[in-house]
Amino acid sequence: MSAHPLEELLRPRSIAVVGASKSGRGGGFVAPLLELGFKGDIYPVNPKYTEIMGMKAYPRVRDIPGPVDYVISSIPAAGVLGLLDDCAEKGVKLVHLFTARFSETGRKDAAQLEQDILRKAREAGIRLIGPNCMGIYYPAMGISFNSGMPSESGSVGVVSQSGQAVGEMVGGAAARGIRFSKAISYGNALDFNECDYLEYFAQDPETKMVLLYIEGVRDGPRFLKALRELAAVKPVIAVKGGRGESGTRATASHTASLAGSREIWQTVVNQTGVVTARDLEELVDIAVAFYFLPPFKGRRVGVTGGSGGSSVLAADLCEEAGLDVIPLPDDIREELRRRGNPVWDWIGNPADFSISMGDHNDTAAITRLMAQHPDFDMMILFVSGPWHRGRRFSIDEHMAQYGFEHMNSKPVVLVFGDRPRGTGREAARYEKINDELKSRLIEAHYPMFPGIRRAASAVGKMISYYEKKR
Amino acid sequence: MSAHPLEELLRPRSIAVVGASKSGRGGGFVAPLLELGFKGDIYPVNPKYTEIMGMKAYPRVRDIPGPVDYVISSIPAAGVLGLLDDCAEKGVKLVHLFTARFSETGRKDAAQLEQDILRKAREAGIRLIGPNCMGIYYPAMGISFNSGMPSESGSVGVVSQSGQAVGEMVGGAAARGIRFSKAISYGNALDFNECDYLEYFAQDPETKMVLLYIEGVRDGPRFLKALRELAAVKPVIAVKGGRGESGTRATASHTASLAGSREIWQTVVNQTGVVTARDLEELVDIAVAFYFLPPFKGRRVGVTGGSGGSSVLAADLCEEAGLDVIPLPDDIREELRRRGNPVWDWIGNPADFSISMGDHNDTAAITRLMAQHPDFDMMILFVSGPWHRGRRFSIDEHMAQYGFEHMNSKPVVLVFGDRPRGTGREAARYEKINDELKSRLIEAHYPMFPGIRRAASAVGKMISYYEKKR
Repeated sequence: MSAHPLEELLRPRSIAVVGASKSGRGGGFVAPLLELGFKGDIYPVNPKYTEIMGMKAYPRVRDIPGPVDYVISSIPAAGVLGLLDDCAEKGVKLVHLFTARFSETGRKDAAQLEQDILRKAREAGIRLIGPNCMGIYYPAMGISFNSGMPSESGSVGVVSQSGQAVGEMVGGAAARGIRFSKAISYGNALDFNECDYLEYFAQDPETKMVLLYIEGVRDGPRFLKALRELAAVKPVIAVKGGRGESGTRATASHTASLAGSREIWQTVVNQTGVVTARDLEELVDIAVAFYFLPPFKGRRVGVTGGSGGSSVLAADLCEEAGLDVIPLPDDIREELRRRGNPVWDWIGNPADFSISMGDHNDTAAITRLMAQHPDFDMMILFVSGPWHRGRRFSIDEHMAQYGFEHMNSKPVVLVFGDRPRGTGREAARYEKINDELKSRLIEAHYPMFPGIRRAASAVGKMISYYEKKR
Repeated sequence: MSAHPLEELLRPRSIAVVGASKSGRGGGFVAPLLELGFKGDIYPVNPKYTEIMGMKAYPRVRDIPGPVDYVISSIPAAGVLGLLDDCAEKGVKLVHLFTARFSETGRKDAAQLEQDILRKAREAGIRLIGPNCMGIYYPAMGISFNSGMPSESGSVGVVSQSGQAVGEMVGGAAARGIRFSKAISYGNALDFNECDYLEYFAQDPETKMVLLYIEGVRDGPRFLKALRELAAVKPVIAVKGGRGESGTRATASHTASLAGSREIWQTVVNQTGVVTARDLEELVDIAVAFYFLPPFKGRRVGVTGGSGGSSVLAADLCEEAGLDVIPLPDDIREELRRRGNPVWDWIGNPADFSISMGDHNDTAAITRLMAQHPDFDMMILFVSGPWHRGRRFSIDEHMAQYGFEHMNSKPVVLVFGDRPRGTGREAARYEKINDELKSRLIEAHYPMFPGIRRAASAVGKMISYYEKKR
């Protein structure tokens, strides 16, 4: 079997950024390469400058002294044919066209220009990503389309028709601790299209799971086959943009896609086994569950750490997400009694921590007993800041309270509310300490959600996936 | 018609906090009274102290020199009967029992003690709030159960069986700009119960809308009548805790409630016209829509300010929430052409601002034309920080871009993402400026949501309410 063509193309020895500038989006493609430490040569190209970000700037691609494998174009559409002539002369292998205003405008001349570009690229043996897209984030190679992206690699691949969506998916998931193998935004999909990227990720050993934002497809049968084959070997979490009438209209002006109906998409989902989300927030939630939890199938959940109404609603919301909030097993109750716990007959599942009056040892003990009990398939823990009865604990003391170290063998999901705690300076202080605790928990590889509804829903979808998979 | 008994009881001349202490929850009831500037006398009561927070502390209620109208009890359950003797002697009218561990424990002796307390209170003519609850937040009187609550009043009343839920509702809604007439958490509802509070809010002129968190009811027919009468005159937004099997189990140990089934609750909803939410986050979202938007019934929405995938998904999510994302009217298109807008034939609804390349005047102009067009019943605007093409604008300049001043006659909903923008110092700087902009928009009384799905869903529910109401 020959390697996928993207395999080599995504490992360029050098990158030219055409239309680079000292600020704005043009500069935006140079800065991330420096930030992520791209190992090869970086060549800013713009006849208006002699130097950009400390590097020599070249008037045209053909003026670059060394070989150029990869070109990022952020020049206006009218200049792209000329750029391709240059690229052909330099032996460029791959061009990413951030450049837009082609077929997505709905204009005949723009669509014709797009086709001319494709023909010229084919003649020159140049492959294209885009146009009208953000291109590539490949942390191991030091390639990124945005600043502030993690430099460490992970196992998640992203395919996105939209450049906005790829930024939101990667940014949102990165903040939750997910790391990526590579992310590709492909816009109008003139040359390489969604099928190529799905096929590439199916065979990519660096990628264990794929996030997909898609609007429309060019070749239905090939897409169905590519998605089915990918989803057969790796979990795929997908959002379909353009599900309804107005969304379909919007996809035409966004990526010149024919979106296809909600019903067709549902058929695709059923035939391929992809996990679907309604929006990117839900997609990231599901990705968090898949990324940090082991594959497991049981639905019996133990919930601890809530208080009052939040425990009651936790039970409802878990149940509505298909989880099984079983009653507290009798032997745990007996053990609590044996230990002299004053609420042994009263505490339940969810274990309401306002009942045990915030006593450190009791709460840790109950969580630990539940986590170690064979009747529970998983645990959901409400986490809050390191305050108890007006006293502040260190983050280490506080983390010890939850008894995390005794749950290694059981999947654990954390719920840590984002909700505000008053206003002003006091609130800002709380926020800072809470953020520190959250960072610590994310670094320790816990799947964390801002609310129980989102946690339960994401985990429920993941369990359904593994059940069907069997 | 005689006044509702709570009318006078909620306006005490003096408050005694029994079980007050220098820290923890006991102190927690004194501090908010000082913070909100309660006008009457505050008497901390605790035999262990001579002074609490700069005020003289009294050993017992009977030792207080002046008259005492209202007592907050945070002493252990065993002391409450004795406290009531004291209260009877002092002529106390209302006792709020934060004190818990009564019938919610499921223990016979505790349930018996609760009944003894009720009997003694009745004999002495003392009314009870609780036990096992947070009591009252009444900003106009300077009464609160938590620190950091807004001191300004508003028109929203809150009735909550859970003390955790009342804090989450009020705190969450306050951060979104909502202000309250009064909030009452009532726990086990030994004396005054949910029906009393609903009846009170129905006749309370300070309250225009009611948020309700309820687990179980004592008297079904009276509850149905009270809720129907309240919902007939004011919007009621409700979350039912204990909808499923495990949640029902949890309500028993939380507030000693019999939760009733999901089907019964659905019947209540249908018969009363309350607006329901699945959790408190959704409840606050709906409250934001009701609080800041005028009553309107049309579903035709104009969406602007998104970009790429977010515009496509905005269309889908609005449609799925029952809104009508109509195509851009032809006369707006013609007007754009007349003005020489380069994307007049291409821009649509949602108006994707990445298409117009971020030009200030164009984006403002399109938003303004849509807002002023009679075909749109409302506008949803994506808002982001004050950056354009790498340049930072002042918050005033930035707000001017959206053309808010030209939309006065049309309901406007803002979507301002919470999502992180990278990490580190740069992100923190962005965050600070974004927070400032958010505060400004909230102060200007815009309903603001962190995502389009939540915005569309809340507004859709509000429109359905007004449609049914007609």
